[in-house]
Amino acid sequence: MPFLRNTWYCAGWSQHVTRTPIARLILGRPVMLFRKTDGDVAAMDDACAHRFAPLHKGELDGDVITCPYHGLAYDSRGVCILNPHGDGRIPPRTQVRAYPVHELQGAVWIWPGDPALANPALIVDLDIVNNDPSRMLTGHLEMPIDYRIILDNLLDLTHTSYVHRGTFSTGGKTRDAKFESSGDYVRATYIDHDVETPPSQKPFFDEPRGDYHTYIDWHAPGILHNAIMMTRTNEDRMAGSVMKSGHIITPATEGSSHYFWYSTRNRRVEDPEIDERLRTIINRAFTQEDEPMMEACQAYMGGHGDLYELKAISLPSDEAALRVRRIMERLIAGEQQQGAKIA
Amino acid sequence: MPFLRNTWYCAGWSQHVTRTPIARLILGRPVMLFRKTDGDVAAMDDACAHRFAPLHKGELDGDVITCPYHGLAYDSRGVCILNPHGDGRIPPRTQVRAYPVHELQGAVWIWPGDPALANPALIVDLDIVNNDPSRMLTGHLEMPIDYRIILDNLLDLTHTSYVHRGTFSTGGKTRDAKFESSGDYVRATYIDHDVETPPSQKPFFDEPRGDYHTYIDWHAPGILHNAIMMTRTNEDRMAGSVMKSGHIITPATEGSSHYFWYSTRNRRVEDPEIDERLRTIINRAFTQEDEPMMEACQAYMGGHGDLYELKAISLPSDEAALRVRRIMERLIAGEQQQGAKIA
Amino acid sequence: MPFLRNTWYCAGWSQHVTRTPIARLILGRPVMLFRKTDGDVAAMDDACAHRFAPLHKGELDGDVITCPYHGLAYDSRGVCILNPHGDGRIPPRTQVRAYPVHELQGAVWIWPGDPALANPALIVDLDIVNNDPSRMLTGHLEMPIDYRIILDNLLDLTHTSYVHRGTFSTGGKTRDAKFESSGDYVRATYIDHDVETPPSQKPFFDEPRGDYHTYIDWHAPGILHNAIMMTRTNEDRMAGSVMKSGHIITPATEGSSHYFWYSTRNRRVEDPEIDERLRTIINRAFTQEDEPMMEACQAYMGGHGDLYELKAISLPSDEAALRVRRIMERLIAGEQQQGAKIA
Repeated sequence: MPFLRNTWYCAGWSQHVTRTPIARLILGRPVMLFRKTDGDVAAMDDACAHRFAPLHKGELDGDVITCPYHGLAYDSRGVCILNPHGDGRIPPRTQVRAYPVHELQGAVWIWPGDPALANPALIVDLDIVNNDPSRMLTGHLEMPIDYRIILDNLLDLTHTSYVHRGTFSTGGKTRDAKFESSGDYVRATYIDHDVETPPSQKPFFDEPRGDYHTYIDWHAPGILHNAIMMTRTNEDRMAGSVMKSGHIITPATEGSSHYFWYSTRNRRVEDPEIDERLRTIINRAFTQEDEPMMEACQAYMGGHGDLYELKAISLPSDEAALRVRRIMERLIAGEQQQGAKIA
Repeated sequence: MPFLRNTWYCAGWSQHVTRTPIARLILGRPVMLFRKTDGDVAAMDDACAHRFAPLHKGELDGDVITCPYHGLAYDSRGVCILNPHGDGRIPPRTQVRAYPVHELQGAVWIWPGDPALANPALIVDLDIVNNDPSRMLTGHLEMPIDYRIILDNLLDLTHTSYVHRGTFSTGGKTRDAKFESSGDYVRATYIDHDVETPPSQKPFFDEPRGDYHTYIDWHAPGILHNAIMMTRTNEDRMAGSVMKSGHIITPATEGSSHYFWYSTRNRRVEDPEIDERLRTIINRAFTQEDEPMMEACQAYMGGHGDLYELKAISLPSDEAALRVRRIMERLIAGEQQQGAKIA
Repeated sequence: MPFLRNTWYCAGWSQHVTRTPIARLILGRPVMLFRKTDGDVAAMDDACAHRFAPLHKGELDGDVITCPYHGLAYDSRGVCILNPHGDGRIPPRTQVRAYPVHELQGAVWIWPGDPALANPALIVDLDIVNNDPSRMLTGHLEMPIDYRIILDNLLDLTHTSYVHRGTFSTGGKTRDAKFESSGDYVRATYIDHDVETPPSQKPFFDEPRGDYHTYIDWHAPGILHNAIMMTRTNEDRMAGSVMKSGHIITPATEGSSHYFWYSTRNRRVEDPEIDERLRTIINRAFTQEDEPMMEACQAYMGGHGDLYELKAISLPSDEAALRVRRIMERLIAGEQQQGAKIA
């Protein structure tokens, strides 16, 4: 299935995009990112128009990047402005594709579709405690997993009780979700009523038991907000420990994805020890619990995430994930019909 | 070429199938095996019907296996009997394919074809000294080799003089085989008359020279009985040292195989030092002598074992191997014509 | 694109072809080479006609090679002369393909096309100082790169200023080439006028500055002569330090190549320390500077060297490389039309 193109994808966290150019695979293409002298981010194909050398290995001088192979120089819009050899002639249309980029709440967003449609107002806000991005704990994982399988995983949190026994699980073995959906938005809400406080909540919640509220919502193409709220039994869900985190999934190739995560909280906010502990538990859960499970499923499915071919059985708990698949299929089909500009 | 399906394949040695589920690739499919509370073996596809998670990583409780991803539980016939989430509804036909299994002489046999045809009487007996499986020395190797190339190798024992110089060779460089065949059975018999006792026979046979008798016979799909008998020159072939061993080849994928071997003998039977020595020599011969040679041949042939495409020259000594290929092709073609149930 | 077949390819340096048979991939086929008792080189397919075992792992006795699998013996023309088993019958046409081979100036040349056309007079002379091959410094690299990308790299020496900053670069950032071409021959000439002496010339040229003359010429299919001459400014180009070296590129597979190089010089000729220093700088330049750059370009291009598909922009400095591509395409097309005997 083609990727959705006319949408914003997260390309990285702001702090990783500096004056040293980096390469990222986005929807199957190597893209180079660097920070311009004015502080904005430039993004363009990471392949010289001449012989396709990786531009990110070249030298950046001001906003001009010089190809490391034969020295062609490009401005930050991807236009070749210097051929250092011979008479210096530059053939017409010697340029690499540049991409619209926008930064918001500490993340860099890239638009791989038609640049004319790239409206920054369409970027989905992150769901952050106190709306203060300065306190976000963030991470970037590269996973050998089709983005659709990662979305399935995140949108069916009944897996927590089995896959995340050592980390996020509340100990209960059954979960019941309520689903809401409107437009290109889906939410699944879970309440684990009067359960033992799971290990992940202990630093923030002193009681041995309580209500464990979770919601996860999805916005196209792969932005998931995940809030976990632990309260005394029957208290209002915002009254206790609140963690708002996010999973932002960007396809790297057809079978692999960037997994950007962030985590914010309302308790022990300025505590680096807690930061470290959370980072450890999150990385463990995502890479040692989720990833091997998804990898085994993907291997069985032949290396991709198409469920229908293999006639997978679906359960009521898959409702959010199936809605998301249907919405994505509709969006992609619509774009294909309109003949979207393909990256 | 498709695999033969309506036949029994060895899936493992009995002692390796326990209460801890294991996964084995059989004819290209991952199969899970475990021992039930009644002592019988259960075999089913190693992929949950829901999202294809590997069931063998789940928990076995009684004869019920719980999927490690979202907790669906299956009985030993592969039928889903519990959905722990929401209202617990289980969609119709939520089950994984189970396979007929039978144990005989210390080996577990699985039938990947039409279950209605799975008659345990069709399992080929192993050829064991004194018919006492309790004294079998056994091993299991996984080889990156098409089963047809392994059968070719075993059915043309003229390779012994070249490939197994350090292990099984009698020192002679020429061998002459007699062939017999009837139905789905082929035998090649070799006599090395009045030769030096090879290293492998020295623990069992005191004389420096003698007659070295070998027969190897094949039963569909990949069961080979191999007897080696060393006698004083011109003595009856059962009068001296007798080793009856077997090679049981089960396709794992199109280009790789399970290689189950056993070895029984009539001399120094209860001697663990000899067991260890035999195990070492067998593993060395199979993995360091046969396997690299077969791997090089398979690589040249493009990763599979089809001889005809490349117009291989055949010799009189290939007669047994060629008969086996023809029988297998006939059996597979017959099955395909009848529209065998495909795993 | 098919390979050019009716031409001589370098298969190795003479000193590496000995009484111990070696295997080399040439145009996608494994070829075995050994030196016969009369001192000439034999070359044949490295796969027994029977079951395709690698002949180079067999025993060489006189000019007869015995297959390591079942003992068939072949003479140096590839004809099977012994079946050691049974009645010794050898089926008609039991032979492996042998190739015309010729040695010249310390290199072994092989002809993978129609043997009737294999005229040693067609072998391209190496370009050697004093025409004395005994003083050649030589090397053999195996590169995971399509030979066409290696030729592009060598025929556009404007890359030196960027890729070889630590080794061959003169420090200048611009280069201007003059091109000559006739028949199946192309030459590019560069003059870096009055430049700083580059590190690679310092052992041979005492002055801090001078003229740095380079020519590189190509002969089909992949023989490149590369002369570097450093003189005092405005002196005759042969008056100072002269290094004549060569790059001989032989396709191993569609995406990988043998890279044979040699180097000769007119100064400090009998100095093993200089030999070692040159060997180090050449290996570093080719494997740590050129190879990663070419590998990145090839990866972007999908693993092969076809420029047209991706609509690469070409510059005036690509003239030599583009002429070479056009000549090769013409030669290959001509050969295909005539129905060249395919290896």
